[in-house]
Amino acid sequence: MRIALLGGTGDIGEGLALRFARDTDHEVLVGSRDPEKARDAVEEYEETLAEHGEGDPDLNGFANEMAADRADVVVLSVPPYYAGDTVEAVADSLDEDTILVTPAVGMQGDEDGMHYHPPGTGSVTELVAQRAPDEVPVVGAYHNLAAGKLADLEVEFDLDTLVVADNEDAKTTVRQLTAEIEGLRALDAGPLANAAEVESVTPLVINIARYNDELEDVGAKWV
Amino acid sequence: MRIALLGGTGDIGEGLALRFARDTDHEVLVGSRDPEKARDAVEEYEETLAEHGEGDPDLNGFANEMAADRADVVVLSVPPYYAGDTVEAVADSLDEDTILVTPAVGMQGDEDGMHYHPPGTGSVTELVAQRAPDEVPVVGAYHNLAAGKLADLEVEFDLDTLVVADNEDAKTTVRQLTAEIEGLRALDAGPLANAAEVESVTPLVINIARYNDELEDVGAKWV
Repeated sequence: MRIALLGGTGDIGEGLALRFARDTDHEVLVGSRDPEKARDAVEEYEETLAEHGEGDPDLNGFANEMAADRADVVVLSVPPYYAGDTVEAVADSLDEDTILVTPAVGMQGDEDGMHYHPPGTGSVTELVAQRAPDEVPVVGAYHNLAAGKLADLEVEFDLDTLVVADNEDAKTTVRQLTAEIEGLRALDAGPLANAAEVESVTPLVINIARYNDELEDVGAKWV
Repeated sequence: MRIALLGGTGDIGEGLALRFARDTDHEVLVGSRDPEKARDAVEEYEETLAEHGEGDPDLNGFANEMAADRADVVVLSVPPYYAGDTVEAVADSLDEDTILVTPAVGMQGDEDGMHYHPPGTGSVTELVAQRAPDEVPVVGAYHNLAAGKLADLEVEFDLDTLVVADNEDAKTTVRQLTAEIEGLRALDAGPLANAAEVESVTPLVINIARYNDELEDVGAKWV
């Protein structure tokens, strides 16, 4: 399978690129608005992977549109305020056979901490679903991953990610794909309408890391 | 220390009563609007504790007002729509030396799952703080505990609860008290203004239990 990480030069994109490249046999397409930046990131990721014994990873850099066009699964790992626009920018590269995965979360910080700040659609996940072409199956996942842990291949984690979708086949594909990453379990959190409660965990884990010295880069395990 | 569990005949109240009675040396006061019901619950809890080798637990049943009056820590383990009224009903029994702990969460369900539905104050925790007398320190805790696991003394768990408060001394007391329960870690989630993100986890764990056959009565571990 081909997995495109649009905005794959950002923190969550980097972690997913490295982990998918190391732990699975799938081809990883790193996307950026600037294809040069995508290729630079790929070079950097290849070096990191080589340092960890992965000499020949299946990893390539492209402009977002090209990455989306070639992929079976497109992960929208861009900041939340770019999520809608990025979907529209790559819309012509998507079809009913391309699964669109969105990890973005709307947050606002104040002196107390981070707070969940969803758009009028109820969640960024549902906003992406609204902006995507009707035939494209949209899946919410990777909202609450500890990005630092993900991007540091020295770290062995035991974490969960929560997956929401209305299209059950797309949800199953993303859950199976995700479970191929070592130490990552993909749980079902129901349909897209349940995305807000999933997204709310992202400001929460930031607050937990801030207020507990013994924890940093916090993720969740549901037990 | 004396811990009152108002609404201590309900599911979260039962679990906290049993665990505090078994795992700590503190006196547990089970409160109910009807003192007879509180005393019946205490009898039942004593039987359960005896079955688990705790023959002489420090457990007593009272009307809510009386339980609050005698306690150092008052846990408002009532349904969310009674939380505000219960605070007002026991307000005369509270003072600056009584810590008021609120675990209640506002939720609404539909065919997709449970959704977070906070009151206008932003969270039930903040609503309780508003309705409590000014001098009473209010702490949010126990929002996301797996009530079934808590109430079943056969179950050994390894769970976290998140604690929010503006009064740092009160927060520390509740965190220390909570950590005396075996397998329970009390993390700091910041001031009361961060309560909404903590409360949002409650509908989420219900959704996770619903959509994943291998999980029931789900709690969280922050790692």
